Amino acid sequence: MGAPIDFYFDFSSPYGYFAGAKIDALAQRHGRTVLWRPFLLGVVFKTTGNAPLTDQPLKGKYALRDFSRCAAYYGVPFKMPSRFPIATLAPARAVYWAQAIDRPKASLLARALFHAYFAEDRDIADASVTTQVAGGVGFDPAQAAAALRDPAIKERLRQETQAAIDHGVFGSPFIIVDGEPFWGVDRLEQVERWLKTGGW
Amino acid sequence: MGAPIDFYFDFSSPYGYFAGAKIDALAQRHGRTVLWRPFLLGVVFKTTGNAPLTDQPLKGKYALRDFSRCAAYYGVPFKMPSRFPIATLAPARAVYWAQAIDRPKASLLARALFHAYFAEDRDIADASVTTQVAGGVGFDPAQAAAALRDPAIKERLRQETQAAIDHGVFGSPFIIVDGEPFWGVDRLEQVERWLKTGGW
Repeated sequence: MGAPIDFYFDFSSPYGYFAGAKIDALAQRHGRTVLWRPFLLGVVFKTTGNAPLTDQPLKGKYALRDFSRCAAYYGVPFKMPSRFPIATLAPARAVYWAQAIDRPKASLLARALFHAYFAEDRDIADASVTTQVAGGVGFDPAQAAAALRDPAIKERLRQETQAAIDHGVFGSPFIIVDGEPFWGVDRLEQVERWLKTGGW
Repeated sequence: MGAPIDFYFDFSSPYGYFAGAKIDALAQRHGRTVLWRPFLLGVVFKTTGNAPLTDQPLKGKYALRDFSRCAAYYGVPFKMPSRFPIATLAPARAVYWAQAIDRPKASLLARALFHAYFAEDRDIADASVTTQVAGGVGFDPAQAAAALRDPAIKERLRQETQAAIDHGVFGSPFIIVDGEPFWGVDRLEQVERWLKTGGW
């Protein structure tokens, strides 16, 4: 089995959500696992000078249309959240905390958090909502709540976000396969071919 | 036969080149034709505040890698041009001039100009190079040279660039099918499905 695929994403990214719905099965088809690596895109944007898509002239209006169209294209349930974008410290911290306990279940939690935000319009920026979702996939909600306030977990997310920047990550989703970087859900076909052929 | 597909692009856009290599055949599979609409992305960027990809932190380095990888993925010959990006007034004007004479041959000219720049590293910003390429596909080079200096042709490109902005075009390539906008060569699969199903 090859090295895990690094899957960088921000929980406020619709394209990250679409990719997250596909990435585990894709990796599995090629004997790989996926390391889910949430980071804070807002911090990255301070480095790159970028702004959220929906704040950009022309592109913002297009993006809203493209989100819904892509959701249908990828066959993923989607409802534009009432609050968008959001600060994603709580869900990101929850995933790093969960990974130390049970990595496969942490991936399940990540998918459940994405689903809560983009399919059920639940505000996962709210620590209590993130905690409920963690409870829903079998983690202890009280432990999850404590973890979100744990300075070590907060520091971990800071480090992961810096590590993402150090690896050249500037958007979400961002997938690294054996050192090869792929940006965007629309690169999943290329990721798949890369895994199949070992590059080209 | 349905209405023509609007294919907006800048001749300095690698992703526009890749899409240009595919769009006519794609349209033809669904009984459509393609209206090639070159515009000046630099003028659009003044509206949107965007910068060329390769000038952007992190994204620029990634883009160079992605250009080559996408070329291989789409099976299109590609060599990163020595000068990039370039001002594309000459090739864009040539195409609008050619369309008034022979629309199918004008599309052939557009593909030949893209190929000259991205496969042969010829500087199509130079009017004499654009004129040579026009001669190569059967247009009169002397007439082409005169057209590039024609105030009416210059005005036409200004109007087309403004029309692109008015239609919400903010990047290259940008494809509009029956009013539905698609940005990027990576939306070709969605364009194809849209043509097949009439939307979803």
